[in-house]
Amino acid sequence: MEPPAARRRVTIVDVARHARVSTTAVSKVLRGAYGASPEMRAKVRRSIDELGYRPHTGARALRGQTYTIGVMLPDIRNPFFPEILDGITGSLEDTEYQVFLGPGCNGEKAEARVTEAMIDRSMDGIVMVAPVSSRARLEHVASAVPTVVIGRHGSSPLYDTVADDDIEGASLVVGHLAGLGHRRIAHIDHHETDPARLAEMPNARRADGYRQAMRAHGLEESIDVVSTSYTQEGGYEGAKQLLTRPHRPTAVFAGADVVAMGVLEAVGEAGLSVPGDISVAGYDNTTLAAFAPISLTSVDQAGHEMGRNAVRLLLDRIAGRHRPSSRVMLSPTLVPRRTTAPPSS
Amino acid sequence: MEPPAARRRVTIVDVARHARVSTTAVSKVLRGAYGASPEMRAKVRRSIDELGYRPHTGARALRGQTYTIGVMLPDIRNPFFPEILDGITGSLEDTEYQVFLGPGCNGEKAEARVTEAMIDRSMDGIVMVAPVSSRARLEHVASAVPTVVIGRHGSSPLYDTVADDDIEGASLVVGHLAGLGHRRIAHIDHHETDPARLAEMPNARRADGYRQAMRAHGLEESIDVVSTSYTQEGGYEGAKQLLTRPHRPTAVFAGADVVAMGVLEAVGEAGLSVPGDISVAGYDNTTLAAFAPISLTSVDQAGHEMGRNAVRLLLDRIAGRHRPSSRVMLSPTLVPRRTTAPPSS
Repeated sequence: MEPPAARRRVTIVDVARHARVSTTAVSKVLRGAYGASPEMRAKVRRSIDELGYRPHTGARALRGQTYTIGVMLPDIRNPFFPEILDGITGSLEDTEYQVFLGPGCNGEKAEARVTEAMIDRSMDGIVMVAPVSSRARLEHVASAVPTVVIGRHGSSPLYDTVADDDIEGASLVVGHLAGLGHRRIAHIDHHETDPARLAEMPNARRADGYRQAMRAHGLEESIDVVSTSYTQEGGYEGAKQLLTRPHRPTAVFAGADVVAMGVLEAVGEAGLSVPGDISVAGYDNTTLAAFAPISLTSVDQAGHEMGRNAVRLLLDRIAGRHRPSSRVMLSPTLVPRRTTAPPSS
Repeated sequence: MEPPAARRRVTIVDVARHARVSTTAVSKVLRGAYGASPEMRAKVRRSIDELGYRPHTGARALRGQTYTIGVMLPDIRNPFFPEILDGITGSLEDTEYQVFLGPGCNGEKAEARVTEAMIDRSMDGIVMVAPVSSRARLEHVASAVPTVVIGRHGSSPLYDTVADDDIEGASLVVGHLAGLGHRRIAHIDHHETDPARLAEMPNARRADGYRQAMRAHGLEESIDVVSTSYTQEGGYEGAKQLLTRPHRPTAVFAGADVVAMGVLEAVGEAGLSVPGDISVAGYDNTTLAAFAPISLTSVDQAGHEMGRNAVRLLLDRIAGRHRPSSRVMLSPTLVPRRTTAPPSS
């Protein structure tokens, strides 16, 4: 199946001729531009496959584009991020763009290293997922290359954002637990001290949403937030603290599914049962939450849609839009499963 | 913390002067070459951080290198791959190299697309994790750019391989289950028909190792292999088939932890308990296996070490080694946990 090395390279003109469309149409499909119908895309994609057309970055770079999109992911172990990534790669499938992930962005320094590396390699656009860097740093990246930020609130004239309505999501969880009869509902948050991040990070919004909803249900006295981290270890440590309270909570709202995993671990270790002794809810509706032996009540924040929206905005910026910047806010839904039930007492 | 844009770019000469070492020494550290002591690396790294030195790809590309390493991952949902990735990024931390992941390589076509994109962007080296492409295709990639293949057996003069001794790993599982008193031990494999892959893929080796070990324990009559896929769904479907056998197996050896997750799901759905009614073992010793509420018996194939070895071989190839090619085979260990116990009958 290897084409002989001496064979002439297939060009966009060959693709257009084979698909019986214009080279402009082929180019539109490859750039993911608006105005290419699904039929047109299918036709061009078929010809590309049949002819074995492969874009040539060197040549394209001379025209000023590398057709490369960098995605910065903080933690490839968090099972929510593959959902976002699927939305991104799925939206770019029919285009000439290739996605490359910069892994291991656990902190401002690592984020700077990876984004500089992306800029340095002339990537056409960058999607930053849940970045923790300062606003100034994000704007520095966005001023160098078209940028969309996923999973962080706040707005900037320089980049677009796609986020979930985290206050609404937290309110759905508290409403569900209060509706089951729980009063002592505790929350595990990601520890945050930076004031800018306190205003923009999803974790801070979820903690705010939790507090607001507790007050709305007349449970102000029972507000109890433990701040650890959005990791399994964070959930484990947070739950250990909550389980030593004189009046143990009857329900725990973990800020992320991966945190809820740590809660389940600590609760099991303490010889308590879920949901018999304690109800547990997460956030993200990952495949882990849906996994039957876990069956975790969670909030679906539509990662796939977040990825799709980010690509749409990014391609639009790459095509030349500089302003206005866009903020897309998606509405979450609650997915009740077996880890939440009425309190036993 | 943003350096003013007008400030002169920090060069390797500045770093050498600041660290009081030669520019050759700095260059060695940045290339991850042999002969730089840990003290030297720490000193240079400190100066790089203090001065805010950032390599400049454009300039370096003119010298023929982009200091970019591409890692092809088949499935970012498989919790084993982050272990390998940590080994790779950890080994490159003190160097000038940046790792980019090509996601979504679920099949030969996607693998071709991603590797071509990496070659096209002049990456210096490629690590392919568990590729399914033909040998000819792998050699095509390796003839274009230094390449190391992880998690696939067989050897080629053109690339190095790092793999786990999968036959030994399967034998550890069967030995453990047989030692507990099980006789009807079934195996769930990844369906494979291509003869080249049957000889080289870890899944095929594990199935072979299972058969060999069953014979060695006098359990030839009980050999029972279901071929689905190395995914959670594959484990679910495989277990569904096994549970309808007239003589149900008392133990299931799933070829990967992610497969074992699907088995646990199907067993629970059938109203059976683990390990009371049926023992379950996986392979990969992922964080999921170690997760207390799951506590899955598994085989540790040292993903971290695999990643480290791959980087060592790749840097060596980038530095100019063309032959001989190396094959590194790592020895697995068994990690018994709560999902395996003596059979109840």
